[in-house]
Amino acid sequence: MAVGYSRLPELLPVPGIRWGVARAGVRYQNRRDLVVMELAPGSTVAAAFTRNAFCAAPVTVAREHLAQAAPRYLLINTGNANAGTGAPGLAAARQCCAALADLTGVPPTEILPFSTGVIGEPLPVERIVAGLPAALAALDAGGWAEAAHGIMTTDTVAKGLSRQVEIQGRTVTVTGIAKGSGMIRPDMATMLAYIATDAAVPRELLQELLDHALNQSFNRVTVDGDTSTNDSCILAATGAAGVTIDAPGAALEALGAAVTEICRFLAQLLIRDGEGATKFVHVQVSGGRDSAECLQVAYTVAHSPLVKTALSASDPNWGRILAAVGRAGLPDLVLEDVEIHLDAVCIVRQGARAADYTEEQGKRVMSQEEFLIDIRLGRGSAVETVWTCDFSAEYVRINADYRS
Amino acid sequence: MAVGYSRLPELLPVPGIRWGVARAGVRYQNRRDLVVMELAPGSTVAAAFTRNAFCAAPVTVAREHLAQAAPRYLLINTGNANAGTGAPGLAAARQCCAALADLTGVPPTEILPFSTGVIGEPLPVERIVAGLPAALAALDAGGWAEAAHGIMTTDTVAKGLSRQVEIQGRTVTVTGIAKGSGMIRPDMATMLAYIATDAAVPRELLQELLDHALNQSFNRVTVDGDTSTNDSCILAATGAAGVTIDAPGAALEALGAAVTEICRFLAQLLIRDGEGATKFVHVQVSGGRDSAECLQVAYTVAHSPLVKTALSASDPNWGRILAAVGRAGLPDLVLEDVEIHLDAVCIVRQGARAADYTEEQGKRVMSQEEFLIDIRLGRGSAVETVWTCDFSAEYVRINADYRS
Repeated sequence: MAVGYSRLPELLPVPGIRWGVARAGVRYQNRRDLVVMELAPGSTVAAAFTRNAFCAAPVTVAREHLAQAAPRYLLINTGNANAGTGAPGLAAARQCCAALADLTGVPPTEILPFSTGVIGEPLPVERIVAGLPAALAALDAGGWAEAAHGIMTTDTVAKGLSRQVEIQGRTVTVTGIAKGSGMIRPDMATMLAYIATDAAVPRELLQELLDHALNQSFNRVTVDGDTSTNDSCILAATGAAGVTIDAPGAALEALGAAVTEICRFLAQLLIRDGEGATKFVHVQVSGGRDSAECLQVAYTVAHSPLVKTALSASDPNWGRILAAVGRAGLPDLVLEDVEIHLDAVCIVRQGARAADYTEEQGKRVMSQEEFLIDIRLGRGSAVETVWTCDFSAEYVRINADYRS
Repeated sequence: MAVGYSRLPELLPVPGIRWGVARAGVRYQNRRDLVVMELAPGSTVAAAFTRNAFCAAPVTVAREHLAQAAPRYLLINTGNANAGTGAPGLAAARQCCAALADLTGVPPTEILPFSTGVIGEPLPVERIVAGLPAALAALDAGGWAEAAHGIMTTDTVAKGLSRQVEIQGRTVTVTGIAKGSGMIRPDMATMLAYIATDAAVPRELLQELLDHALNQSFNRVTVDGDTSTNDSCILAATGAAGVTIDAPGAALEALGAAVTEICRFLAQLLIRDGEGATKFVHVQVSGGRDSAECLQVAYTVAHSPLVKTALSASDPNWGRILAAVGRAGLPDLVLEDVEIHLDAVCIVRQGARAADYTEEQGKRVMSQEEFLIDIRLGRGSAVETVWTCDFSAEYVRINADYRS
C-alpha cells in the first residue's frame, strides 16, 4: 500500500490517444506486460530521458527515432529492461519497433520503445512481437487505467491523475500515468511516465513546458540528475481539443500548471509507493544562500540510511538529522544558526536540542504517515523541498529477492 | 560475528602506555563503558578528527587541548556521544577532564576526552566522574584487550592488532585498537581508534606518518572525508623503546608500514563488522584517468543500496553494478571500454554481459564471504580500492532499534 494513496482515481480519456494492453509472458505468465500507446497523426511529443552514461537500448533507439520523426506509437514492455545488453539489445529494440511498424503501417522511426524490468537479460523479442496483435486489438481511448496497470513492476498501486482546464473557451484535458517505486535512491528504480493533453502545442514549446514541470516534480525525487538506465518521461499533445497554444501567455501557464500538478502528484506517488515505505516525508531546506546548497543538504538528509531507518522506527533521533546536515559539505556552516523542526515542533536550536523540546513531541510527529522535516540554515533566502520515505527491512527483502 | 574475523588476536603491551577500564553505568548497567589511557611523560601524540561541520563537544575540547599541551591521559566513554549538545556539552566534556586532572595531578589540558554512543542526550557527568577512580585503579600495561572491549558500542567483536619491527637493533612495538561497525555509509558509524608505539617520534613527523596511514586505510572506508560527529584516531609515541626516529628514512618507513598495516586491518574490521554484514567486498576501480575518478566510481558502487542488497542475496545482478558505474558522473565515459569482473570471472565486456559468462559463475563468486568487484574503466592507469559490505535486513533492525 502506498502511503496516503489507496487507489487509482478516475482517468479521463484524452482525445487523440488510445491505449492497448496485452499479456505477452515477457518474464511472468498471465501478467499485463505489453502496452501500446497510439497518438493521433499530427501529435507533438516532448521527452526526457535518463542521464545515466549507460542508458538502456530502448532509450538510445527512442532518442534516435525522436530526432527523425513525430511518434505515432509508443511500445512499452515490463519484465525486461533491455539494459546492459550491448549491440544485440539495440537490435532487439529495433526489431520490436519494426514489428509494430509492419502491423500499423507506419515507419519504424515513428515508434518509440520503452522497457523496464531486470537488467542485463536478452529481450525476448519473439514473445513481445507475438503479443502485439492482441495489444493493437485492445486499443481504446478509455484504456488509461488498464495502461497504468500494464506498466507496473514492483509498484503496489497503479498511478495516475487527470485534470481539466478551460482554455480559449474550451475544455482541455491532461491525463498522466507513471510506474516506479523508488526508495533510498529513487533514481535507481526505473521511472516511466506518460502524460498527454488534447491541446495543440508546438514541439519546442511543449519541451519547455515539460522541462519546467520536471524541475518541480520528478527532478526533486532524484539526485543531481542521476537516474536509472531506463528512466523516461513523455508528454504528448494531440491537438484534438481544437485549442492551439503556440506562445507564452495565460493559456500556456494554465496548461503548464496542470501538467506540473500531475507530474508532482506522480513523482510523489513514486515515493509514497517506495519499496517497503511506511512514511512519506517532505524535507524542506530554507535559509540557504542558493538553491544548490539547499538541495545539497536536503538530499544528504533524504539519503542518509541512518535517518531513514530512524524514520521507519518513528524514532525522533534528531542527532542523525543534525549529523547529516553537518556532513553535507556546506562551506562555513555555522552550527549555532541552524534550526530543525519536525512539523511545528522545534527540535534543534543553536546546535543543540531545543530547550523546550520533549521526545514525546517528536515521537508524536514522526508517528504520522506524513510529515515535514524543516531545516533552516539561517544564511540566505533560498528554499527547496525534496520528498523521501523511510527505509524498512521490507525494502531489503524486496530488493534482495527481486530476481528470484 | 564479523566476516572473516572471529576473535581479538593477542595484543602486545606498548611500554609507556597503560589502560584502565571501569563500569560507570553511562547508559547501561554492568557494561564496560569508561576507559582511561595513560601516556608516559614525554610521549608525542598525532590525531585526526571528523570533518563533520557539527563535531561533537569532546572533539572540540580535544582539539583545544592538543593545541596547548602534550596529552598524558585519554578519557573515553561509550553510551553517550555528547554530540549535538551545544554549550552544556562543551562544559560537560571539560568537567570530565577537570575531574581526571584532579585525580592524576596533571593540568586539564593534558587530558583528551572522547565519547561515543547516542547523539543529543546530555552527558551524565556525575556517573563518569564517579567511575574514574576505578578506571585509574585498573591501569595496567596489559590492558589493551580490556580497552578494546571497553570502547565497543554496536560492535560484535573487539578489534585490535599488534606488530613488532626491528629498528636500530631494537624491537619496536605497535599496537592499535578500534571500535565502530559501519554499514552503507561507514562515515556515519562513529569510529574511534587508538594506536601506540614505543618508538620516539617528534610530533610533526608522527602526524605525517598517521596522515599517510589513514589515506590507505580509514579514509578508504569513508566518503570524501565525510565522517560522523565523533570520529577520532590517535597515534601516540612513548619513546620507551629507546629508539628515536626524527627524520625520513628506512626506520620511519618500517614504522610507517607497521602503523599502516594496523590501520588497514582495523579499517577493514569496521566493514567486516558492519551492522548486519554477511559479506566483505573489495571494490577495485582501475584504468581511471586519476585517483579521484576511481574513488568516485568505487564509492558510487559501494554505496548503492541496490548493489548492496544484491550482495546480501549473493545475487550476481551485475546490471545494478553497471548502472552504478554509469551514474557515477564521469565525463565521456565510454560504455564499450568498461569491463567488470567478480574475482576472476568477467561479467561485463563491451557494455553487455560477457559472452562466456554464466550466472552460475557469478553466483559461485558471490556466495563467498569475501570477494572482489573489479571494475576496469579502460581510460587511464589510476587504481583505487575501497572496502564495503552487503546490506541486510538485519542492518535496518539494528539501526531502527538502536535507541530503544
